[in-house]
Amino acid sequence: MSYITDDFLLCTPAARELYRKYAAAMPVIDYHCHLDPRWIADDVRFDNIGEMWLGGDHYKWRAMRACGIDERFITGDASWREKFSKWAETVPYAMRNPLYVWTHMELKRIFGIDDILSPATADKIWDECNGMIARSDFSARGIMRRCNVEAVCTTDDPADTLEHHRKIAAECPDITVLPTWRPDNVLKIGDTAAFNAYADKLAAAADTDIASYADLLDALRKRHDFFAAAGCRLSDHGLDRFYAAEYTEREAAAVFDRVRRGGAADAGECDKFVSALLYELAVMDAESDWVQQFHIGPIRNNAASMFRKLGADAGFDAVDDKNYAAQGFAFFDRLYSEGHLAKTVLYNLNTRDNDMLAVMANTYNSAPVRGKIQYGAAWWFADNEKGIRNQLDSFSNAGLLGTFIGMLTDSRSILSYPRHDYFRRILCDVLGGDIESGRLPASEIGRIGEMVGDICYNNIKTYLKL
Amino acid sequence: MSYITDDFLLCTPAARELYRKYAAAMPVIDYHCHLDPRWIADDVRFDNIGEMWLGGDHYKWRAMRACGIDERFITGDASWREKFSKWAETVPYAMRNPLYVWTHMELKRIFGIDDILSPATADKIWDECNGMIARSDFSARGIMRRCNVEAVCTTDDPADTLEHHRKIAAECPDITVLPTWRPDNVLKIGDTAAFNAYADKLAAAADTDIASYADLLDALRKRHDFFAAAGCRLSDHGLDRFYAAEYTEREAAAVFDRVRRGGAADAGECDKFVSALLYELAVMDAESDWVQQFHIGPIRNNAASMFRKLGADAGFDAVDDKNYAAQGFAFFDRLYSEGHLAKTVLYNLNTRDNDMLAVMANTYNSAPVRGKIQYGAAWWFADNEKGIRNQLDSFSNAGLLGTFIGMLTDSRSILSYPRHDYFRRILCDVLGGDIESGRLPASEIGRIGEMVGDICYNNIKTYLKL
Amino acid sequence: MSYITDDFLLCTPAARELYRKYAAAMPVIDYHCHLDPRWIADDVRFDNIGEMWLGGDHYKWRAMRACGIDERFITGDASWREKFSKWAETVPYAMRNPLYVWTHMELKRIFGIDDILSPATADKIWDECNGMIARSDFSARGIMRRCNVEAVCTTDDPADTLEHHRKIAAECPDITVLPTWRPDNVLKIGDTAAFNAYADKLAAAADTDIASYADLLDALRKRHDFFAAAGCRLSDHGLDRFYAAEYTEREAAAVFDRVRRGGAADAGECDKFVSALLYELAVMDAESDWVQQFHIGPIRNNAASMFRKLGADAGFDAVDDKNYAAQGFAFFDRLYSEGHLAKTVLYNLNTRDNDMLAVMANTYNSAPVRGKIQYGAAWWFADNEKGIRNQLDSFSNAGLLGTFIGMLTDSRSILSYPRHDYFRRILCDVLGGDIESGRLPASEIGRIGEMVGDICYNNIKTYLKL
Repeated sequence: MSYITDDFLLCTPAARELYRKYAAAMPVIDYHCHLDPRWIADDVRFDNIGEMWLGGDHYKWRAMRACGIDERFITGDASWREKFSKWAETVPYAMRNPLYVWTHMELKRIFGIDDILSPATADKIWDECNGMIARSDFSARGIMRRCNVEAVCTTDDPADTLEHHRKIAAECPDITVLPTWRPDNVLKIGDTAAFNAYADKLAAAADTDIASYADLLDALRKRHDFFAAAGCRLSDHGLDRFYAAEYTEREAAAVFDRVRRGGAADAGECDKFVSALLYELAVMDAESDWVQQFHIGPIRNNAASMFRKLGADAGFDAVDDKNYAAQGFAFFDRLYSEGHLAKTVLYNLNTRDNDMLAVMANTYNSAPVRGKIQYGAAWWFADNEKGIRNQLDSFSNAGLLGTFIGMLTDSRSILSYPRHDYFRRILCDVLGGDIESGRLPASEIGRIGEMVGDICYNNIKTYLKL
Repeated sequence: MSYITDDFLLCTPAARELYRKYAAAMPVIDYHCHLDPRWIADDVRFDNIGEMWLGGDHYKWRAMRACGIDERFITGDASWREKFSKWAETVPYAMRNPLYVWTHMELKRIFGIDDILSPATADKIWDECNGMIARSDFSARGIMRRCNVEAVCTTDDPADTLEHHRKIAAECPDITVLPTWRPDNVLKIGDTAAFNAYADKLAAAADTDIASYADLLDALRKRHDFFAAAGCRLSDHGLDRFYAAEYTEREAAAVFDRVRRGGAADAGECDKFVSALLYELAVMDAESDWVQQFHIGPIRNNAASMFRKLGADAGFDAVDDKNYAAQGFAFFDRLYSEGHLAKTVLYNLNTRDNDMLAVMANTYNSAPVRGKIQYGAAWWFADNEKGIRNQLDSFSNAGLLGTFIGMLTDSRSILSYPRHDYFRRILCDVLGGDIESGRLPASEIGRIGEMVGDICYNNIKTYLKL
Repeated sequence: MSYITDDFLLCTPAARELYRKYAAAMPVIDYHCHLDPRWIADDVRFDNIGEMWLGGDHYKWRAMRACGIDERFITGDASWREKFSKWAETVPYAMRNPLYVWTHMELKRIFGIDDILSPATADKIWDECNGMIARSDFSARGIMRRCNVEAVCTTDDPADTLEHHRKIAAECPDITVLPTWRPDNVLKIGDTAAFNAYADKLAAAADTDIASYADLLDALRKRHDFFAAAGCRLSDHGLDRFYAAEYTEREAAAVFDRVRRGGAADAGECDKFVSALLYELAVMDAESDWVQQFHIGPIRNNAASMFRKLGADAGFDAVDDKNYAAQGFAFFDRLYSEGHLAKTVLYNLNTRDNDMLAVMANTYNSAPVRGKIQYGAAWWFADNEKGIRNQLDSFSNAGLLGTFIGMLTDSRSILSYPRHDYFRRILCDVLGGDIESGRLPASEIGRIGEMVGDICYNNIKTYLKL
């Protein structure tokens, strides 16, 4: 009667063998997430499963809205117990949604609970989970250890103090927590007030003035070095598309000057400025031998009334459909041809672009790094079984699957690590299925198993020099 | 030797159980079609299977052209018998096309015929079908009863008298036939002559003058009320993309004035006018608590020579590739944020946009309606097994499958109801396969069956308040 | 322990029956490739498997770059033996990439070798292959006979002498080698120097002057006739998108005049000129009853530094994401409505456009040719098992699979013919799977087998009038 069994998603003998021998025991390196590093620094304890599941998870908020649940029980002033009940009411409608799988994998793998969440089981699950959450081994670090987490990379603003990362490094030797450089805010030149407020904040963090474009680059370089010193080895950009407008340094500087003095930049000027700055940031990443990540394709905050009420990340983001190949190729061609192309991971949100982006990534590989330019794991709205299978197919067809750096959670929740197990099971089922159907030679199962281990753990470890 | 067996498409025991217990007996609510309501009002009898199949079905016409059949046997003056023979000649080339399945499902489910249509069986099938068609229980209503049809929603112009709907309501209590408000013609401001001719027609129907934009809105409101009084509870829009240009009322009114006086509107002016009017129409729908439907993405009448000869809907429509996310989000954000967003169904024709549109729909849900904003069933060129499976996947991953309102035929033919059975079998095969492979918990088969019943019948009944 | 067995990819009894009875023995007509006709004219012998595999195959070069191999071993001065070793090192990382299958199908089908290529087997395979390559029956023609090749169509510039084709026709009666008219160079009006150099070359080939647009069309017509006399019956266009700008003859001629005198054409002028010339070329094809092919969607030479070093076709091409439906429909509507539409094959590179392009193709069919407008086989970056299955699905759903003209290699290598076998196995597995699952009637296996034979061989033979 159990759902998340040992053989969950492993539909062939070869799949089961691959998973058990090569995947199951591998530590987790969650190289891109949105976890709050303070939780780990302070080794926080959570109050209850309602808070843990529903405190910030806008995936679940969307599902609850789709279930017709009143906003009071989603982001409003209802109690965690009430919100949890409404979530339990939503789950039976969510079959085939990844939330259904994740919910039950988290219950099983973290709490050892086999029940299916529904109004009928909500009380029991609430009590059992909260009983465990109250225990010291269910602290933030405890849960990470329970999930065999070796390293995570959080997502951080260049102005961040990284104090929590320093504290973790000093106090928690068994879990590596590294910052990731995410300079999205410095690209928002289209909003004069926000840009200037952010420039002031960045100047303060860099202990300098930012009065010119050259000052801005200097401040960013100082902070880039500061991040590197804190162990950072990845950057990340959240973009609607790539930017590769023609510009001169003088033009970029002029746009900066106008906005810094309170003026406004028009669309063409923003395009030039962002193109210029993204290039400079990419060169910094190459010089530091970092991995740069590009997450392309969201369209954000699509409900003005809710944005005013709840702010960003409230479940009103979605998938854009801009074309961006030409700009992407121009951007990477310049970096590649000048010798400034860092290791790079490209993620797309609109699944229609999978094959295009996988091919783009594989246009810029070069020695000596194996799989230097990666087509990134299925992400956000594509992070479901079909999305994962399609990403694996696009990666396989456009490049060398054996070089893939594998899964990440992109999550804000500390309960999401079972998604790595989900990915590993799907990976083993894909490869095992290929063996059973003769698409891959059964004689090579040892090599295939080695590849599984590489994708689950070894490749990312090498790629990030961990 | 039979093709359309009881187990057709049901590949697992769980699929068969779901279908038999929860799907097979459900009545059909065909909430979007292009049936001529006169057929039902007059309970017409058809002459022969050639006329029934080939009289207006441009899907079959395209297939016959692909088979190299001369146009005389498609839309020309050949006899129904000759046309039927040419269709029988085409069918063996159409394996894997949905027409192949539909043809044989219609033969089996409506006429009880097990033969495979080909030149060898054409005579026999012609005779057998026509023998039945001559019977009184194969009238329009007879066929609908045979197919367990409880309700259909036709597609009607705001200027329509709805006389047939009134007659059906008075005379045929066991089949509900409701009109759908489809105001496409009033949006065609780019064609001055056509727009003015339509405005005159609409003015006559509304028994008013339409001399200003305000008059136009008044006339539309009058007709909207008239449709509501006739039981209408859905609107529908056939659009190449969404429209959300910035405009002022004054600008929209000025465009109307120019065109109404015989002038022309340029592309930018059309964009403003259509954006304005679509908004007003959406507000009317919200005020009436209707369901608004948007069918996005055809490009029509792509062979000028055949359009001159045959007019629209002759098999020369196709799939466009415009990007429309930004306009869609702007359009729905405004309605949502102002509190004017009606229940809404979003359909896309270009399959590359499935995931984007499913996510768009699920960005605007709100209490208290379950599944208020729906990602619509696979449609027209996507209405085939793969398209249906992909729609179910996109719906499942972006929202709550348990809230889905399910299938519709979008058909002009009274023989198309077996497409509901086709959909139900695919739905049960998807869910049954998930159970058998452990993707869904076998212990929940009762809940899954309930969901099947909801998707086949209960959800649409609740959604439309039938 | 064998990988490429007799049953490779044939997962059901019906699939195996279809393959053995209807597909396996069919001759190969490779109607689109980039083979050097000189190889066949001179019946060349190759030096070694390293040269044969790595001499010009930019697919493999990309894979080796993804494996972190130094460029010296890819396009540099390393020996063929060294390059072969590096390829052997790459292959174990390439599982699930079509190169992995192709490599082993070529080893098995052409050389009778069952080993899996890896560093461990590289020496043995090098020796065994080269031993065979040294034999006279492994000459170019020998390999083609071994692969049951009946006809190939190469890809040739209008200025080409076609001397090799004439020599083959005279000396090698058992293999038909026809030229294909590929006038891409005459469309490159945006590069004044290149355009004029090419116009001079074309003028010389046509033994005329090209001083005006009318001269250009005359020269092209002369060469078109020359190609026809050499047995040509296909044209081919490699385009980023379709072109159907509005233009007058006078405008097109004026653009030509400016560029021919050394001036430059801007984007709008190029658009008009290319639209005009593509139309004229299409009319020539219709008048000659040729088949015109359109390969839509690459973005080429995306690494400027490597283009300077290696030129085109070096592994730096990729997939574009332009929208092109509106231009495509305008282009084909004009030809169709004027009665100038030749038999046509439409290929797309970006898989997101599969369904759109398959529907576009099927909008323009007309009597008396069966399957006159074809949605072309999966191509280049889409030429893998998933791409082939998706192309078959899109073809099936939008048109009549029974009319499909089937597979081509698009290859520069003489070892690529096993890709036809790969395609046939996938085709039979698709249809066999449909029979076994009841999607196609088992009683029709004879008709289905006939369709297999048609798709593998008969349809293309009829379509090209071979």
